[in-house]
Amino acid sequence: MALVALTESDSDNGRTAMTDSSQRDALLEARYGQQAAPVNIIWNEQIEALLAHRSVRAFTDEPLPDGALETVVAAAQSASTSSNLHQWSLVAVSDPETKAELARLTHGAEFTGFDFVAQAPSVLLWIADMSRSHAISVEQGGKPVVTDYVDAFLMASVDAALAAQNGLVAAEAIGLGGVYLGSLRNHAKELSDLIGLPAYAYVVFGMAVGTPDPHRPSAVHPRPAQDVVLHRERYRTRPVEEWIEDYETAFKAFRAEYGLRDKTWSHSVAVSTGLDYMDGRENLRRTLEERGYLLR
Amino acid sequence: MALVALTESDSDNGRTAMTDSSQRDALLEARYGQQAAPVNIIWNEQIEALLAHRSVRAFTDEPLPDGALETVVAAAQSASTSSNLHQWSLVAVSDPETKAELARLTHGAEFTGFDFVAQAPSVLLWIADMSRSHAISVEQGGKPVVTDYVDAFLMASVDAALAAQNGLVAAEAIGLGGVYLGSLRNHAKELSDLIGLPAYAYVVFGMAVGTPDPHRPSAVHPRPAQDVVLHRERYRTRPVEEWIEDYETAFKAFRAEYGLRDKTWSHSVAVSTGLDYMDGRENLRRTLEERGYLLR
Repeated sequence: MALVALTESDSDNGRTAMTDSSQRDALLEARYGQQAAPVNIIWNEQIEALLAHRSVRAFTDEPLPDGALETVVAAAQSASTSSNLHQWSLVAVSDPETKAELARLTHGAEFTGFDFVAQAPSVLLWIADMSRSHAISVEQGGKPVVTDYVDAFLMASVDAALAAQNGLVAAEAIGLGGVYLGSLRNHAKELSDLIGLPAYAYVVFGMAVGTPDPHRPSAVHPRPAQDVVLHRERYRTRPVEEWIEDYETAFKAFRAEYGLRDKTWSHSVAVSTGLDYMDGRENLRRTLEERGYLLR
Repeated sequence: MALVALTESDSDNGRTAMTDSSQRDALLEARYGQQAAPVNIIWNEQIEALLAHRSVRAFTDEPLPDGALETVVAAAQSASTSSNLHQWSLVAVSDPETKAELARLTHGAEFTGFDFVAQAPSVLLWIADMSRSHAISVEQGGKPVVTDYVDAFLMASVDAALAAQNGLVAAEAIGLGGVYLGSLRNHAKELSDLIGLPAYAYVVFGMAVGTPDPHRPSAVHPRPAQDVVLHRERYRTRPVEEWIEDYETAFKAFRAEYGLRDKTWSHSVAVSTGLDYMDGRENLRRTLEERGYLLR
């Protein structure tokens, strides 16, 4: 936990090099399992904190501490923004009824249970937001047409994602934890209505944030080895057979360690590319068009 | 510069509280200008580093140090990834001819000059990459159809963006700097050909990375005040007039300080919503469709 919750008081030099080294080995092992891990990482405390990220879905009941939301937003606003347009917004939800409604929108209308979205102290809704640009352009006598194009949709969505990632890194830096909620796109239309979004805005994803429950620590899914994602100079298409076995081994070991049902990653991937997996997200395009994103 | 390049050796406790406090005030002033800044930021060195971000376009000639790329990739892989699918890749370009070609693709065919994209030690191309998932699904006897939907396009693009932002934070943590290059989408088709991208993959954006040239320091564009982007419980549509004057004042002061031509931000926004601004990106949809992203 100390690595996740780095604060100035953690940055004393009292730890021995031995401790650092074994912590760092543990971080790489959690990230890559028994696959080849890079041996030349340039370590420091910030790198340790980034590599220690884990998605947190189990929180204590504590509300966010004073200043936490403002710290997250300041970090989010410090991320790059395309053409200095600031085309994102954030709706921070802590009201229990709204959170319960968000949980229902994640799971579908039939849901009556309780889950971590409802339980999280705060649910942050990260919004691609061209509504301000659109209004300013009209006010200036312009004729905003860029909104109609897929590039504009992407630009605002990427702005929101960069802001959100900086926000999550900041949340972890002050001892909080969180998890992205792509499932909030399952019912994008209802979500827009729930929070009163204007045209030219949509929720890219949610993020549950709070103090991690120390009694229910979360795990790190292993990643494929670096040479699966990293290419030099040109993209090198590799046959899947060249690397999949090593990753399946790491995936299997992870599932065994946490007592999860044995299944292959390849099987999960195949399931995720089928229509059943989408849970309503197959309608996203229609909702985007209704909201002014024509995706030309 | 010290704030950008935090390393363990910077984390001694020798700095006085006074120095910390004035550094922190300076960070908030750079970010918000004379607009209201939050007074309850929870400060520590990681938060300082995030708030000290500035886009860097001027680099020294030094190549990336040994281990820098692997550190960036390890941080990028430590970001969340939707449904554990790892749907992004990175092509790291350092070859001078390829970099010159990337500069030409940014500026258009008529470009013969020299610019920071060609001069940067490394240009990272962040790729939304469903090609591995697609191949695995086919190999498993599945029928991948999710690729056809805009949600899948968004999922892979957001995966790439989260990875890239962690990568940039890591680059800054080890003393490097960088800048996002959305302009690499201007000629998306030619770029895909240049780096040999397979189907179901496209470059979301580039990123120039290197050691910041201390003789050509970069500036921080001010952001709007927090209450422009942050909403509580529900989205609150505010008339632009309520906040624009404060932001225009900060924008004007920034441009005056750096000797830039006086113009309003509103004018820039209006220009950016017109078709002329797109520089070829109006064709992105066609390129995406050719690459297998049908955006249904």
